[in-house]
Amino acid sequence: MNIAILGGTGKEGSGLAMRWVLAGHAIIIGSRDAARAHDKAIEMRERTNKLTIVGKENAEAAALGDIVVVALPAAGLSATLPPAREACRGKVVISTVVSLTFGGSRLFTPPAAGSSAEEVQTLLPEAKVVAAFHHIAAHELAAAEHDIECDLLMCGADVEAKTVVTELGTSMGLRVIDVGPLTNAGPVEGITALLATINRRYKLKNSGIKITGLPS
Amino acid sequence: MNIAILGGTGKEGSGLAMRWVLAGHAIIIGSRDAARAHDKAIEMRERTNKLTIVGKENAEAAALGDIVVVALPAAGLSATLPPAREACRGKVVISTVVSLTFGGSRLFTPPAAGSSAEEVQTLLPEAKVVAAFHHIAAHELAAAEHDIECDLLMCGADVEAKTVVTELGTSMGLRVIDVGPLTNAGPVEGITALLATINRRYKLKNSGIKITGLPS
Repeated sequence: MNIAILGGTGKEGSGLAMRWVLAGHAIIIGSRDAARAHDKAIEMRERTNKLTIVGKENAEAAALGDIVVVALPAAGLSATLPPAREACRGKVVISTVVSLTFGGSRLFTPPAAGSSAEEVQTLLPEAKVVAAFHHIAAHELAAAEHDIECDLLMCGADVEAKTVVTELGTSMGLRVIDVGPLTNAGPVEGITALLATINRRYKLKNSGIKITGLPS
Repeated sequence: MNIAILGGTGKEGSGLAMRWVLAGHAIIIGSRDAARAHDKAIEMRERTNKLTIVGKENAEAAALGDIVVVALPAAGLSATLPPAREACRGKVVISTVVSLTFGGSRLFTPPAAGSSAEEVQTLLPEAKVVAAFHHIAAHELAAAEHDIECDLLMCGADVEAKTVVTELGTSMGLRVIDVGPLTNAGPVEGITALLATINRRYKLKNSGIKITGLPS
């Protein structure tokens, strides 16, 4: 599958790209700056020895993807997504966005829509939005060889889109847990703030979460 | 220690009461209705064979507690807490409150204050509020004999209060994780919505969470 990653030059986006390219997918790294996307793609081709990575401006990247991953900063959604609206029509769009403010009085503030994923859905009304992949530490993604000790929580309205996300998560060795409709995305996104706090407080890079009580 | 549990006739509150009375604490069950609190206390005394459980009206319960646990419905805070303000002055107050709406379009909506725990802090300004014990399934608490497979996440401003909460959690066999200031309570509370969704979707009664990546 061709996976476009908007904001794919960031840590989380490029970590996901790395894992997916190694799992056999083609990756389009998206950035505001086409040259930066291109450079990142070259760097990743060299690092992974895989040729199936290219870099494009975000809206162009979205057009080339069968699946579009939104790994943008929360503040960038309203500028970046409207030009990609047509390109995302009918596609599975995965939001990894979390509205975090470092150095302020409150780390996590959900947007007025309830969550960043719901904001993505509003900006891309014909897309099949699923919120997922917020908690998989970039540090863990970059270390491509070892297993990631974290569950993948996903939520969204579209059953088919959730099947696609389940496949993408499973291909990375993750257990995928369906946590309901997109209106649960706020709580899913908020966990990222807790993991960031735990990492800082306990001097870790890779805290994660597991759901207990599920049949194994 | 004397632990007052406001809203202690509910499932979560009485589950906590059960565990703590078995760990050697004295419990004051609080309710809007003193007679109901009294009946619940009698029921629990019979069930646990411990005499150190009494039932009182909420504000009276708060006055008798060294520690006060707020296990009220989110909608009841603004009516129930102001009469208990004096009684809570200087005390450790543990908020287990989560603003959930069942059967509506959105399960979890954080209050304007950011979280129910911050609302508790606003209503009880001289109390040392810690948000904790949201995720420990009532079903698990009631089954007093076995271990609970869930981490205890707590957040709050007061170091001494967090030490008290750590002791209360550890006495129940829980690993206690400090997730920072009370401004992180919204994300902590939101997890409850995800666990409720998982329980319904996967037909469980006792899903929980564990943080991964911490040194064991």
